[in-house]
Amino acid sequence: MSDQTETMGSWLSQEELNTVRARMPIVYVEAVPVRVNGSGEVEHVGLLLRVMPDETVSRTVVSGRVLYGERVRHALIRHLERDLGPLALPMIPPDPSPFTIAEYFPEAYISGYHDPRQHSVSLAYVVPVEGDCEPSQNALDFTWLTPEEAVSPEVVAEMTGGHDRLVRLGLAQVGSLP
Amino acid sequence: MSDQTETMGSWLSQEELNTVRARMPIVYVEAVPVRVNGSGEVEHVGLLLRVMPDETVSRTVVSGRVLYGERVRHALIRHLERDLGPLALPMIPPDPSPFTIAEYFPEAYISGYHDPRQHSVSLAYVVPVEGDCEPSQNALDFTWLTPEEAVSPEVVAEMTGGHDRLVRLGLAQVGSLP
Amino acid sequence: MSDQTETMGSWLSQEELNTVRARMPIVYVEAVPVRVNGSGEVEHVGLLLRVMPDETVSRTVVSGRVLYGERVRHALIRHLERDLGPLALPMIPPDPSPFTIAEYFPEAYISGYHDPRQHSVSLAYVVPVEGDCEPSQNALDFTWLTPEEAVSPEVVAEMTGGHDRLVRLGLAQVGSLP
Amino acid sequence: MSDQTETMGSWLSQEELNTVRARMPIVYVEAVPVRVNGSGEVEHVGLLLRVMPDETVSRTVVSGRVLYGERVRHALIRHLERDLGPLALPMIPPDPSPFTIAEYFPEAYISGYHDPRQHSVSLAYVVPVEGDCEPSQNALDFTWLTPEEAVSPEVVAEMTGGHDRLVRLGLAQVGSLP
Repeated sequence: MSDQTETMGSWLSQEELNTVRARMPIVYVEAVPVRVNGSGEVEHVGLLLRVMPDETVSRTVVSGRVLYGERVRHALIRHLERDLGPLALPMIPPDPSPFTIAEYFPEAYISGYHDPRQHSVSLAYVVPVEGDCEPSQNALDFTWLTPEEAVSPEVVAEMTGGHDRLVRLGLAQVGSLP
Repeated sequence: MSDQTETMGSWLSQEELNTVRARMPIVYVEAVPVRVNGSGEVEHVGLLLRVMPDETVSRTVVSGRVLYGERVRHALIRHLERDLGPLALPMIPPDPSPFTIAEYFPEAYISGYHDPRQHSVSLAYVVPVEGDCEPSQNALDFTWLTPEEAVSPEVVAEMTGGHDRLVRLGLAQVGSLP
Repeated sequence: MSDQTETMGSWLSQEELNTVRARMPIVYVEAVPVRVNGSGEVEHVGLLLRVMPDETVSRTVVSGRVLYGERVRHALIRHLERDLGPLALPMIPPDPSPFTIAEYFPEAYISGYHDPRQHSVSLAYVVPVEGDCEPSQNALDFTWLTPEEAVSPEVVAEMTGGHDRLVRLGLAQVGSLP
Repeated sequence: MSDQTETMGSWLSQEELNTVRARMPIVYVEAVPVRVNGSGEVEHVGLLLRVMPDETVSRTVVSGRVLYGERVRHALIRHLERDLGPLALPMIPPDPSPFTIAEYFPEAYISGYHDPRQHSVSLAYVVPVEGDCEPSQNALDFTWLTPEEAVSPEVVAEMTGGHDRLVRLGLAQVGSLP
């Protein structure tokens, strides 16, 4: 489970983390992995197939907590390598400002982003990936989709918590939303 | 003290907040208040004069925590009204993505942003303010400066923790960095 | 015709403009007019109903040339006032960088943005409008739509040249793409 | 001269270009070349030393016209390869929106950006460059500078037309403005 992995590397026990989660917004990073062509245009979006905290199986993006003392850039690299393997070669963008802020709440109606576990404020980035991606043990699969496929009703139906919208917003920022 | 005011509105006691601060990055918002002309160009930047957590007196921007369950937009409005008074009429930008992410660490050398109390991840926005600003009891003064004045050595010398850089980055985003 | 109106204010005769249009990309601005609530969230998008250069009737955004010697900000204001009337009160954003660059070509397949008259490079902005909008003589109608309505198949079918995509990208930037 | 090179690849004679330049804003792209580390942080900025249109010698960024029928991305690649050589390996950013719009006018006082030849609207990008840079025959030299060096009074004194400000704005966008 992605959540346990993160906790092991942090300074909070699972119990402490649960307590804080009921009291404070948690800082997250999310990455929409993409393949770009030689002109920088996005040709494919990478989606993981994963067992979610609510035990359903969903397509999702790379996502995880920022730890105490950790730079946002380093959290992005850590989660990308954890989910896509050590040969993925992510190109972290120089600009530190995310393409959007996804605010996840335990209640689904507040922002359109929903996480039953917590209120998190997630900094979302489109990250070109140049190497070979091998999904880690946390993920069941990893697939490259065209932008058209990524926003198709079939794929949207496999995403939860607002991740389909996050993918559309990422594609929009790079001008590749169909 | 700004910090106590925030704590009163939150779901953590000061003691609990201190514990979490040693373990988790805290979500902050920061606003660089500006006056714009009829074409949207920034003509003045507003800086507060305030007693900082380390008890020095500094010029600073509007800054504060995002509370559990609170939208980032609403945290921005709350802190702007707290610091600039109820008649300030801030125009929160439609775009939720900040112009930069300022990562404050207890150690000064990590990112150039420094807060002795905590590791915070601060979402920074340039916010046009249309009404009358009256600094609250937390602030000693509030002054509108031209961009040239705001980046002058005299004013920079009155800012700490990297706030002078945050102001320069905000002015750069709106094309008004001298 | 919007095109003649622009030409009158510029330094090129219609014939000269036609010659240049076959040789050089032309600088345009486009504005997606929006209504925001007190927190800056976009609640409505404004679309014009207009006779297009190819004589079809389409829903469209505010659009027009930047003239020789004219600032981009002033071109935005001029076209917004021309299309929405003098009481529209547009709030030009302080940030000069557009949410996207729409590259219109005479051939439809190059970029997804299409203009039979010319190659134009259009700087696109989301512009909050606070006043009363009265479409000018160039437009048949002006309507405020919710984001859901603006991206619905019915409304998309009434847009041409890639304007439906431009509206989706604008809504995405402000986090309001459904 | 960079200008002649561009003209050869375009659809206008030098005389026609001169005529249009007195009547229409011209679309430009500008690239601030940077070296990034493994986390995407900018460590160096690349500046050319070049004979400018006014025959002075200045430090400058990569800059040039967008031709009729050419995508902005392809214009960026073309000018980067022309100025930095075929082995520079520029990584064009996926996001098509520039970090700023630099509006150059024949009069120096309008926008702070100045070009005696023309009114140009320049789309400015920070472009990571991974390969070896060899300045072309148009440039006298090409140097990698740290951000501190690039904004130092000595280097600023060697830039004209507002290019020093453009470099500061580019560094600000990537959070590396000192």
